[in-house]
Amino acid sequence: MPSAAGRGQGKDRRPDNEEQPAADDYAKERYGVSSMIQSQEKPDRVLVRIKDLTEEKADEVVWVRGRVHTSRAKGKQCFLVLRQQQFNIQALVAVGQHASKQMVKFAANINKESIVDVEGVVRKAHQKIGGCTQQDVELHVQRIYVISLAEPRLPLQLDDAVRPEVEGEEDGRATVNQDTRLDNRVIDLRTSTSQAVFCLQSGICQLFRETLIRKGFVEIQTPKIISAASEGGANVFTVSYFKSSAYLAQSPQLYKQMCICADFEKVFCVGPVFRAEDSNTHRHLTEFVGLDIEMAFNYHYHEVVDEIADTLVQIFKGLQERFQAEIQMVNKQFPCEPFKFLEPTLRLEYREAVAMLREAGIEMGDEEDLSTPNEKLLGRLVKEKYDTDFYILDKYPLAVRPFYTMPDPVNPKNSNSYDMFMRGEEILSGAQRIHDPQLLTERAKHHGIDLEKIKAYIDSFRFGAPPHAGGGIGLERVTMLYLGLHNVRQTSMFPRDPKRLTP
Amino acid sequence: MPSAAGRGQGKDRRPDNEEQPAADDYAKERYGVSSMIQSQEKPDRVLVRIKDLTEEKADEVVWVRGRVHTSRAKGKQCFLVLRQQQFNIQALVAVGQHASKQMVKFAANINKESIVDVEGVVRKAHQKIGGCTQQDVELHVQRIYVISLAEPRLPLQLDDAVRPEVEGEEDGRATVNQDTRLDNRVIDLRTSTSQAVFCLQSGICQLFRETLIRKGFVEIQTPKIISAASEGGANVFTVSYFKSSAYLAQSPQLYKQMCICADFEKVFCVGPVFRAEDSNTHRHLTEFVGLDIEMAFNYHYHEVVDEIADTLVQIFKGLQERFQAEIQMVNKQFPCEPFKFLEPTLRLEYREAVAMLREAGIEMGDEEDLSTPNEKLLGRLVKEKYDTDFYILDKYPLAVRPFYTMPDPVNPKNSNSYDMFMRGEEILSGAQRIHDPQLLTERAKHHGIDLEKIKAYIDSFRFGAPPHAGGGIGLERVTMLYLGLHNVRQTSMFPRDPKRLTP
Repeated sequence: MPSAAGRGQGKDRRPDNEEQPAADDYAKERYGVSSMIQSQEKPDRVLVRIKDLTEEKADEVVWVRGRVHTSRAKGKQCFLVLRQQQFNIQALVAVGQHASKQMVKFAANINKESIVDVEGVVRKAHQKIGGCTQQDVELHVQRIYVISLAEPRLPLQLDDAVRPEVEGEEDGRATVNQDTRLDNRVIDLRTSTSQAVFCLQSGICQLFRETLIRKGFVEIQTPKIISAASEGGANVFTVSYFKSSAYLAQSPQLYKQMCICADFEKVFCVGPVFRAEDSNTHRHLTEFVGLDIEMAFNYHYHEVVDEIADTLVQIFKGLQERFQAEIQMVNKQFPCEPFKFLEPTLRLEYREAVAMLREAGIEMGDEEDLSTPNEKLLGRLVKEKYDTDFYILDKYPLAVRPFYTMPDPVNPKNSNSYDMFMRGEEILSGAQRIHDPQLLTERAKHHGIDLEKIKAYIDSFRFGAPPHAGGGIGLERVTMLYLGLHNVRQTSMFPRDPKRLTP
Repeated sequence: MPSAAGRGQGKDRRPDNEEQPAADDYAKERYGVSSMIQSQEKPDRVLVRIKDLTEEKADEVVWVRGRVHTSRAKGKQCFLVLRQQQFNIQALVAVGQHASKQMVKFAANINKESIVDVEGVVRKAHQKIGGCTQQDVELHVQRIYVISLAEPRLPLQLDDAVRPEVEGEEDGRATVNQDTRLDNRVIDLRTSTSQAVFCLQSGICQLFRETLIRKGFVEIQTPKIISAASEGGANVFTVSYFKSSAYLAQSPQLYKQMCICADFEKVFCVGPVFRAEDSNTHRHLTEFVGLDIEMAFNYHYHEVVDEIADTLVQIFKGLQERFQAEIQMVNKQFPCEPFKFLEPTLRLEYREAVAMLREAGIEMGDEEDLSTPNEKLLGRLVKEKYDTDFYILDKYPLAVRPFYTMPDPVNPKNSNSYDMFMRGEEILSGAQRIHDPQLLTERAKHHGIDLEKIKAYIDSFRFGAPPHAGGGIGLERVTMLYLGLHNVRQTSMFPRDPKRLTP
């Protein structure tokens, strides 16, 4: 519980070295630094949420806990902006019946980002208060206590951190570079943009699982520490495991497939995926979150492709419906066209994509993989032609896919595999997997893979395995591309790349 | 698409080396081994689920895909039990209009666990069919094709794997030991018990998140590769990270707390947690799934304790309501009293627990931690006195808790910390965390922790931090104890312990 200034620990914890409240300060009980909240009491005081402070509450006395977003002293008055997540309100401390000169000075000296408890009367504003989410009311402060004091020098300013970059360049006003943001993530994550990005990301996970559970999928948990590098050993992190060593899983694929062989039929998992790739690009992380799906099908892997595509469509729709405020908040700083998609999802064959690219002047072979620039160009061509930011590319050349990919039954140079794209960037890779141990062995040999190392994998299919397909979605990429952001580090709370392991 | 016997690849893939179908076999098109399903076609044949085969479908002709659970030839007939997840039905292949002698022989020779497509007429059974979930109907087979052939020798028998252990000892009938199960997990997971355990576990995750999202929590994703061992460096796995090294997170706690400092207010995460402990017990794993919660509170950490306890209660209730069939399925093999809990949850103080134990004849000091046997004894005492399998133990001695635990404001030997127990075993540990950098520094020094190593942690609280508390729940333990199982390896799909890294 906040204690009044001059009581308890508060005495020693003034925000700066100003003098103690004068004995003749008639407001001295009405402000100060509270003793640390250590669960001393269970008062029945209600703290009202800032977002609920509207004209309906006019003339009510309320208690609010918020951060000091800005403060500005002006003669006998001090204007504070109090912030709570993405909401904020103007609070006025003015010399008068409730506040003394000393109290105004105290309020004006509270470091930005400190957390305060404020008692005040909600008053209708004479004119709209620009820059605050609560534009129609302000709070006339009667008591103010510091709950947690911030250090005086912030490593970055929140206002700078939400400034659109173009404006910053035009105006010469400060913006915050990415490393400063990431080095001081606790503060950077407080911005309205970051709050919106990560609430929306939480929503993507929720919609992904909601949709799949509705479709009859079961959630599985797969191990991240594995005994053998699943895909040949490249790009894998090594872990010391007691007296031996182990690896970090590059994907849950083997385990998803084992669950299919174990009759779970439709499974999904959400979890970290590790790639020891020394790629320093806008879209690679060494640790990211995989949204993974695997499903037994009856006759054709398109049964699975349709389920995955529909799951993504349900996510896009759910975001539109439930996260409109967050999308608009991010757009303020990073303007972007709304994300477009078709129902049913557009599915092109790889050869059609190659034809489109050739028509646009690109030279490439039939069995050549898509380069990143070609991927993006293709995204633009597809957008022009079909007006969609989301599509499936089906029937990749067998040569560019992993050994466990099912060959196409008609054209042996093709495979039953697919990628999915958002705004011209790959967000999912998937395939029908070979469920026959004999064919799997042949294909592994053809790829020069040491059969001894994948014995456990192949053995999983020896006791009856249904035909199945699946895919893995990169969560951070989906968030980035849905919102039209440009770096996956903006959509990973604590990103990991070859050069960053902290915070 | 299944092709008839004698066509395509089927020719070369007979389940055993029997002769080719005789030319005079009038049923030769009606059975065989299908060519591998490679997505050749999109037929409109509907495969009916075994669980939907009831008297209502009597006399209908249906197609079913299932595993051969058992087969038994008897003169001119062959009885198969076809299984699909936890459901099964008897299928009869009998010499007659549709089936020849050769076809019956073919069916009788299909290896157990093979996947078959069967066309048959649903017929009312003359008497209840024991041992099948579909007791009132059987399937009179008209066509049967092998979709995926299992090897003839199974490493374990599913019937043995679901046999209650007591019965096995009494009868001298086989059961399957744990290592055999885990070594052949793909088959062990097919049992009705395993299917039920892991469907219920999927439900726990779902109920956990559903409840928290309803309470306004945000899901976060925290990194598992970290640069510094968070709690001093013991029991941590080391990862080689490019030219340097890193660690695997022992808990998401630091990151949860950073999210609280970043104003997310209420967060949760579900993800792997790594402990390099050489503990070979029934309840320790080196990798398990943590259900983690962290929450800012207003005045008292009991606000958080109440939310966590209610979340667990919502999980228990949801399981009762939605997973009754699974609970009963597991109980068949592992009989157990139903899980009991109170609303609101019983909360005892540590000193009360010590008094109860002393009354039961245990000698222990006021500031001594609970040993595992004492924990279990206490569980029995609490059950006797309060009739609950779930309770909270609050106010642990400060001496037995980590440095970041908030001391009790009244009695400095105590702390604002708590554990939660199910059937006498700990499933959650939590506390109010110290949110004041100065006190945190003092407590770290008192514990002899190198301040340099936890600098980033302490610095997180320097820019205003709300009071907060949280806790971490072990998913596998909750599943185990809710179902009254006796080993956490039964509730981890692919368990990891000091001696097991495969499959």
